[in-house]
Amino acid sequence: MSEAKGRLFGLGVGPGDPELITLKALRLLRTSQVVAYPAAKGRKGNALTIVEAHLDPSQILLPLIYPVTTEKMPPPFNYETAMRAFYDESAEEVAAHLDAGRDVAAICEGDPFFYGSFMYLHDRLADRYETEVVPGVCSMLACASVLGAPLVYRNQTLTVLSGVLPEEELKRRLGDTEAAAIMKLGTNFTKARKVVADLGLLDRALYVERATMENQRIEPLAAVDPDTVPYFAMILVPGPRWEA
Amino acid sequence: MSEAKGRLFGLGVGPGDPELITLKALRLLRTSQVVAYPAAKGRKGNALTIVEAHLDPSQILLPLIYPVTTEKMPPPFNYETAMRAFYDESAEEVAAHLDAGRDVAAICEGDPFFYGSFMYLHDRLADRYETEVVPGVCSMLACASVLGAPLVYRNQTLTVLSGVLPEEELKRRLGDTEAAAIMKLGTNFTKARKVVADLGLLDRALYVERATMENQRIEPLAAVDPDTVPYFAMILVPGPRWEA
Ligand SMILES: C[S@@+](CC[C@H](N)C(=O)[O-])C[C@H]1O[C@@H](n2cnc3c(N)ncnc32)[C@H](O)[C@@H]1O
Ligand SMILES: C[S@@+](CC[C@H](N)C(=O)[O-])C[C@H]1O[C@@H](n2cnc3c(N)ncnc32)[C@H](O)[C@@H]1O
Repeated sequence: MSEAKGRLFGLGVGPGDPELITLKALRLLRTSQVVAYPAAKGRKGNALTIVEAHLDPSQILLPLIYPVTTEKMPPPFNYETAMRAFYDESAEEVAAHLDAGRDVAAICEGDPFFYGSFMYLHDRLADRYETEVVPGVCSMLACASVLGAPLVYRNQTLTVLSGVLPEEELKRRLGDTEAAAIMKLGTNFTKARKVVADLGLLDRALYVERATMENQRIEPLAAVDPDTVPYFAMILVPGPRWEA
Repeated sequence: MSEAKGRLFGLGVGPGDPELITLKALRLLRTSQVVAYPAAKGRKGNALTIVEAHLDPSQILLPLIYPVTTEKMPPPFNYETAMRAFYDESAEEVAAHLDAGRDVAAICEGDPFFYGSFMYLHDRLADRYETEVVPGVCSMLACASVLGAPLVYRNQTLTVLSGVLPEEELKRRLGDTEAAAIMKLGTNFTKARKVVADLGLLDRALYVERATMENQRIEPLAAVDPDTVPYFAMILVPGPRWEA
């Protein structure tokens, strides 16, 4: 006897403000028996914090606890190996619920396909289960909105960069675009700000951390103390105003 | 006696599916006395179509009718001049309601600050009136979701390009990034697809038109008939899958 399998939903829940979730993500979140979310050990994680108020006690919470890693780990530890094992296990935990016929809402901060952790579940499960992805408001555009900064005009090029990139590559790419976002700051902040300054862009660049969250902070980029920069921070270089 | 002025809201209403609006945009849409929207003469426009079902008959509709233009017009016509006049007039129409103390919701397809027409109102009015921008789901991430294509992994670079760019520039930029979106297709489609093919990216590139709208269409890029490509279409080149 073959039971119907559950469906996998990858739900973008937006950048932080619980009101920035879409009607569709909210509907599918509420009607899924299982809610899977990424979290560090002993923490709730951003995605769950965002949707918490919308959940019902009858829903099964499935925390996917990621290993404590940094991109540079001393041997024999290895970031890639650790993360691969984590995603493999997470996918099997989710699959067990799907096999049992339960719909699983995998929630993801921002948008699922914009540097989202959901992509690694998607790559493992979308071929095996009915899967639907609901796009969300990404952090980059949330940052632009709270900064009041139109990000990219008309036919300008927008480049989205990771702060993890080497200084020379960051510099080359940032110097060859009209608008840019630099994500993943944290310990990469000092390097990223130096690149912005070296290119003479300090006047145009903007900084924000935890955009739309309760502890959002906006500061002039030049004034930011590098020791305080969290991972959830971004530098934007809005495109030059197009004088339409 | 000084009356309180109205507030200006720039509301991202998402890429097409009315369910992809955020709770916040919906709340501010419903509580604004005036709803301003861009439209061609005699048309409703995408933004209004998206939110229509949510409006109340008591709300004032303010269509901002844009001139029929193309980016290349024969002299004495000039795209820049025509658009500037249009945005100047639109801003004054919106300002008249704000001066009369009415809140104005200026709705924008996708996200307001991601190539959105709202940016030109913002540039004219944000200094003069209390203004709040509510980010929305942008078309690029809606396209990725309906294509089931994770767009950009981990520390990859994402480049967003306008199809209006010259062939050589499109080629140089597309050849120097890991993930890309090419917007504004329409008559630029043939050039854009040629660039994708010349770079050997036809296998990785994806095509979709009117993502999340009722008449959405997905086709293999190689099979698309250029004569049928609308303005609301996009080519995505997702970043190579990161084997986490
Ligand atoms: C792994 S990416 C996840 C992006 C997410 N999927 C999205 O759509 O925004 C994490 C990075 O996103 C940025 N980020 C996410 N949320 C943010 C927020 N509320 N404010 C500022 N930056 C944020 C930071 O640069 C952070 O390093
Ligand atoms: C002026 S830009 C507006 C972008 C909008 N503000 C956003 O956030 O997506 C118009 C371009 O967006 C893209 N676009 C907008 N909606 C789309 C949709 N539903 N499907 C595919 N492309 C879309 C097309 O490439 C179109 O040429």
